[in-house]
Formats: sequence, C-alpha cells, structure tokens
Amino acid sequence: MAYRETDNVKARKAAQRDHLLHSAEQLVREGGFANLTMQTLAVAAGVGVGTLYRYFDNKAVLAAEVFRVATEREVAAVAQAMEHAGSFPERLSHVLQVFVQRAQAAPRLAWSLIAEPVDPAVDAERLTYRQRYAALYQQLLSDGVSQGELPIQDTAISAAALVGAIAEALVGPLSDPLPKANLAESLTQFCLRAVGASPAQADVIEQPQTA
Amino acid sequence: MAYRETDNVKARKAAQRDHLLHSAEQLVREGGFANLTMQTLAVAAGVGVGTLYRYFDNKAVLAAEVFRVATEREVAAVAQAMEHAGSFPERLSHVLQVFVQRAQAAPRLAWSLIAEPVDPAVDAERLTYRQRYAALYQQLLSDGVSQGELPIQDTAISAAALVGAIAEALVGPLSDPLPKANLAESLTQFCLRAVGASPAQADVIEQPQTA
Repeated sequence: MAYRETDNVKARKAAQRDHLLHSAEQLVREGGFANLTMQTLAVAAGVGVGTLYRYFDNKAVLAAEVFRVATEREVAAVAQAMEHAGSFPERLSHVLQVFVQRAQAAPRLAWSLIAEPVDPAVDAERLTYRQRYAALYQQLLSDGVSQGELPIQDTAISAAALVGAIAEALVGPLSDPLPKANLAESLTQFCLRAVGASPAQADVIEQPQTA
Repeated sequence: MAYRETDNVKARKAAQRDHLLHSAEQLVREGGFANLTMQTLAVAAGVGVGTLYRYFDNKAVLAAEVFRVATEREVAAVAQAMEHAGSFPERLSHVLQVFVQRAQAAPRLAWSLIAEPVDPAVDAERLTYRQRYAALYQQLLSDGVSQGELPIQDTAISAAALVGAIAEALVGPLSDPLPKANLAESLTQFCLRAVGASPAQADVIEQPQTA
C-alpha cells in the first residue's frame, strides 16, 4: 500500500506541475515573460504563492522551464518536418513552412521564445536550443551534400547561419503590427539560395515584391 | 570664472566616466559580462565602489552602457566598410571580412556582445543594435537591387536574415576552442548566394572543405 500511495503522490505532483507550467505558458502567450511572475502565476493557476515555491525555486527557474517546454515542442515539430520525404529543396521548404506557420499562429510566444529580453537563465537555454536546431539543419545539409544536391560546404557554418537567418527574419516581421504574408516564401528562397540549392529544384514561386 | 570651473568639472567627470567604461570593457574582454560587477570594476579602475554609483545607478545600467559603447564601434566599422566602392559582391565581401576579422581579433568580446546570457537591459540593447545592422544591410541590398545586381526581393526580410546568419555563424565557431580560418569565406559565400548575387561577380575562392 505504501508503494501505491507513493506513486499516487508522485502522479498528483506531476499533474500539478503540468498544470502550473500550462498556466505559466498561457501568461507568456498573452504578455511575454514580462507577464510571468510568481504572483501572476499564483492567481492564474488558482494556487497560493507558497505552493509555487514547492515546484520552482524562483522566477528565473520557472521562466527557464516554461521556455524549455515550449521550445522542446518547436524543436520536435522541426525534427518531424525534416522527416518529410523529397529532394533537399522540398524538405527545407517544408521545414520552413512548418516553422513559420507555427510562429505566425502564436506570434507573441514566438517573439518571447526568440527575442524577448529575459533573465540570463532563459538566455542560456536559448543558446542550448540554437545548437539543437543547428544540429538538425546540419544533418539536413549533410544529406543534401552527400546526395549531390548541394555544393560541398562547411555544413556547421551553413547550419548556424541558417538558424540565425530564420530566427532573425521571424523576429523582425513578427514585431511589426502586421504579419508578413510573404515571410515563408521569402525566407525559403533566401535559405535555399544560401546553401546553393539549385533554384530549378525548388518549388518556390517568385513573389511580386518591391525592394 | 564660475562658468569655466563648471566646464572643468564637466570635463573631469567625462574623463573619469571614459576611464571607468574603458576599464569595464577590459573586464568584459577578459571574462565576459559575468566578469563585470561594481566590485571588480572598482578594483580594476582603482576607485571606490561609491564613486562608481555616482556614474552608474547599478550593474545593469553599467553593463548596458559598456555594450552600447563597444557595439557602436562595431556598427561604425560596418557602416564605414559599406562605403567601399565596387560591385555588390565586392562590397558585401568587404563588409563581412571586416566584421569577421574584428570579431576574431577579440573573440571573447564578440561572443559577449552577441550571445552571452546577460541582464535583460543588455538584451534590450541587442535588439536595438540588430535593427541598426539590419538597416545598414537593407540599404546595401536596395543598392544592389536598384543597380540590377540582385533579383527583386523583400529587402527587409533579407536584411534581417543576413544579420541573423552573420551573428549566429560567428557565435558557433567562436565558442569553439579553435577559430575557424574559413569562416569569412564560407559566410561570404552563404550570404552572397542567399541574396541572389551572381557567383560570377563574387570574388570568392572555393574552399576545399568537407561536409
């Protein structure tokens, strides 16, 4: 019996923790990390502030955990999108479309995850996750090079540059009041050209844009 | 006489402030923003901690000011490099060479300015300066498009993507123990291709690299 009670307690604690993290992410979706404090979370989750401290040592630890949970979901979506069958241009186009669509569906959260000035603990997590993204893109690039679809290149540098280009292109347009309808297409074209993918292979439509 | 004394006092204060900022930047060059506290600066500059608080309200204000001074210098170097005469590929290649060489000459400082987890006040400055860089690159791209050297493109998106690509490519290799000798060339090739600059125009040498 004692063993089963322990399991029950563990399960209850895990469920409570999930509930708190879900409420915390909602606060970030509404007003960024600036909107996430122990006080606002206690109110939003309907618990006492004291309860929160049983799960998170302080606000920085809480913010870093919310960041990890939300970003892990985005990394998983990108990793899954990379499983898409097809040529290199088709795969990269698909990945970027998924990434941009997800960001544009939750622009405030995307901005907070990528660029909002935050506690150094979240900044440190950002570096870790940018390396995770870079490793995914490097694998995609290595596939393209080994299949003869891309010119030989330093895939570590190209992958890092892609991660930076994608993040920065998102942050600019997302911080504007109007979302840019041409973001996914423009960014895809930029990235395909950058790594030397033959334009003939790409399924990208030229946009009537002005400089 | 009273007027001249006021000027003298102002000049002395300005000189003292410059001295403090110079000492503070040295601390960042040696050990990043983590190495910059009111205490370490007081020792390094040979003043009392109380004196520091006459110039900087707190450590976050100090760090943000050190960031601004150092980054303003980098922005000025990039802006000057963009004045380089020549074709679009020549101009972009020159800018990237200057930027990468400066970063590789002071890798710890470059990493701290671009990526070190820091106080939100410095994060906020980073966003401002990324917009400054983006505006410079957008002007260069607009020149290239209007000269018929580049295909028509959304130069705001391309400029943001370039800024992100350059920063991220620098941060990865700089955080490695060995600086990458091929960084400037690889990054230049990536950026020229990304914006659709004709490879024939570019003065880029193919590197014997492996994927």
